[in-house]
Amino acid sequence: MNQELHLPKGFKYTGIHAGLKGTANLDLALIYSDVPCEATGVFTQNHFPGEPVKLAKEILKEGRLQAIIANSKISNVATGEAGQKVAQHICSSLAQELSLEEKLCVISSTGIIGRLYPEGVIEKALPKLCQSLKADSDSFMNAAKAIMTTDTKAKAFSAKVGSATINIMAKGAGMIDPNMATMLAFITTDAKIPHLILGDILKRVVNQSFNNLSIDFDTSTSDSCFLMANGLAGEVDLEAFEKALKDLCWQCSEALVMDGEGVDTLIDCQVGGSTDHSMARAVASSIVNSPLVKTMITGADPNWGRLIMAIGKVDDTRLCGVAPTIHINGICVFKEGAPHEHDLTAISNSMKTQDRVLLEVDLRRGNESIRYLGGNLTKEYVSINADYTT
Amino acid sequence: MNQELHLPKGFKYTGIHAGLKGTANLDLALIYSDVPCEATGVFTQNHFPGEPVKLAKEILKEGRLQAIIANSKISNVATGEAGQKVAQHICSSLAQELSLEEKLCVISSTGIIGRLYPEGVIEKALPKLCQSLKADSDSFMNAAKAIMTTDTKAKAFSAKVGSATINIMAKGAGMIDPNMATMLAFITTDAKIPHLILGDILKRVVNQSFNNLSIDFDTSTSDSCFLMANGLAGEVDLEAFEKALKDLCWQCSEALVMDGEGVDTLIDCQVGGSTDHSMARAVASSIVNSPLVKTMITGADPNWGRLIMAIGKVDDTRLCGVAPTIHINGICVFKEGAPHEHDLTAISNSMKTQDRVLLEVDLRRGNESIRYLGGNLTKEYVSINADYTT
Repeated sequence: MNQELHLPKGFKYTGIHAGLKGTANLDLALIYSDVPCEATGVFTQNHFPGEPVKLAKEILKEGRLQAIIANSKISNVATGEAGQKVAQHICSSLAQELSLEEKLCVISSTGIIGRLYPEGVIEKALPKLCQSLKADSDSFMNAAKAIMTTDTKAKAFSAKVGSATINIMAKGAGMIDPNMATMLAFITTDAKIPHLILGDILKRVVNQSFNNLSIDFDTSTSDSCFLMANGLAGEVDLEAFEKALKDLCWQCSEALVMDGEGVDTLIDCQVGGSTDHSMARAVASSIVNSPLVKTMITGADPNWGRLIMAIGKVDDTRLCGVAPTIHINGICVFKEGAPHEHDLTAISNSMKTQDRVLLEVDLRRGNESIRYLGGNLTKEYVSINADYTT
Repeated sequence: MNQELHLPKGFKYTGIHAGLKGTANLDLALIYSDVPCEATGVFTQNHFPGEPVKLAKEILKEGRLQAIIANSKISNVATGEAGQKVAQHICSSLAQELSLEEKLCVISSTGIIGRLYPEGVIEKALPKLCQSLKADSDSFMNAAKAIMTTDTKAKAFSAKVGSATINIMAKGAGMIDPNMATMLAFITTDAKIPHLILGDILKRVVNQSFNNLSIDFDTSTSDSCFLMANGLAGEVDLEAFEKALKDLCWQCSEALVMDGEGVDTLIDCQVGGSTDHSMARAVASSIVNSPLVKTMITGADPNWGRLIMAIGKVDDTRLCGVAPTIHINGICVFKEGAPHEHDLTAISNSMKTQDRVLLEVDLRRGNESIRYLGGNLTKEYVSINADYTT
């Protein structure tokens, strides 16, 4: 995925092994801009966000940021006052190490809930972390690897917009359902855009990309998507920027789903003919999150009755009465309230031979539509999450 | 579960192999009362209910019933006009066979969605079915077995109220989430109760039993709970009747969960301290349906952070601010916004050695509470549902 990774001017990255993970795996990342950035973020809507999320929201009120330290393994969620203090302490130590104002630094964490970072481990690693900062792809990829938890691949994408560059690194894997940024994502750009405009753009983009994917219907307490713009490449066309950012985030969404816990098939669910956007979203989410739909895809079984079930269980009485039209991999299976003649074997074969399946639903009510991504449910998901230890 | 199965007076039951299932398994049941019954039902809230559900709702408008024919394997859902006609035809053939008015007969079906009953198979079996009706436990159990799909055990319970008897047979296994009767259940009693009162009682009871269990967050298009009262034992104390019925349905709910697809551990989730009933229900449902909570129980892992996550993702802003208190198997793990000292190994051991786990959440807001049942998520669930073929 990372054939041509462009880096925006003035950013440096690194990822090291600090000792949070037992093995020698990378577990601590740093993203740094030579100059202060305009910055914004979108965060989990979970009512019990982690201490890092609370701190970052506070810092971002001023719309400025210069460094993000990010770790895996420990999320520092539900840790109370002790968790808040240690997060603050790490940020202020980092600021000192980088000779920055403290309010330009944030920490972003994922991993086990209810545990504090092991004492002093991150603090002790700060000199090495800061010294290893570099403006090259390898360092960027190390940062992308250091934020991984149950991810099997680093996710890194970039794009050009006029003279500017945008790139993104993200982690996903589990506890992923919209209602926020759905994971950790760090976007850096050298475009010059004020943070208030940046905030509007990011919100719109996330609502059409990361918020349209679901892996397991569970909403993390740590999800955060940061966007830092240091302005070194000057101004850009804002529409072009937003489009490029959206494409980038969509690309990243697909990669997140494909690397979702236990996922081997991407569900590309396109719901059209909806009365309004919220109906389309509710239907798509219900389909993509239905355990019976997810397992039928694992079994390469075009059991479209489960799609009817998943649409029909949505808590929206406006869905009564008009039966939807349903296509699987382009073949019509249900139309005008009755099964539509189709070749089950042909559909099943197409499901067996591809690593994505296209579910198209026409609600036959209006003109709103949505595209929504999900993953199938496999025994590996159960293994990963039954064996993931506290 | 079936040591002392009492039968109400004047009811006969049977279950036979009609040929819907490929093997010699029982697949067609009949429940019959010697005299017309006062009757009521609670049905799926799915917007696309099966043809049998639509017919039964129509018939029950008059509150009378004398015979229920029930089959497994084919649900006759999403089959359009053809499905409606064949359901009607079976009911009228049954009425003829039993010399009843047509409007005293209903059909109730579960199984694959989108398929018609194989032509003539049920009709051809009607004489044998009606001749095999008997007023004994074996026949009752045959009926209970004939309605099973992926269930591994028949569910049958009975109780005495004064001079009257109530019994219930039910099937469950998958596609089970509240919002209805959550499965097929047939309750027969010889108590004398008018259908309007019977309807109120059943609604209240279902809302406190079958609607408080969830196996996979999917809502079947066939779910139906019928209650027939033939009056042969005379009048009963209504409060005692309701209590006995509720106990029976709760017993049945536990059995349904324990026999849920792939379930080997029952989740007994008790949410208290809620502002109102809907908040308690939403929190309990979120916990019991969270794939990450379900898999942590499979792994006997007291990863209580996932409970925080599941509570925090509920779409109810009133949950912000006050952190809940959480106990697992009676041991406090989270209190006053921070981890509570506890012995993880002790909790894990208790989870390993029992086939049920108790999750207690105190939302610390008000006095409403709910008890909610669920099942863990295992690889077997995935196997069963990936291999269940159209």
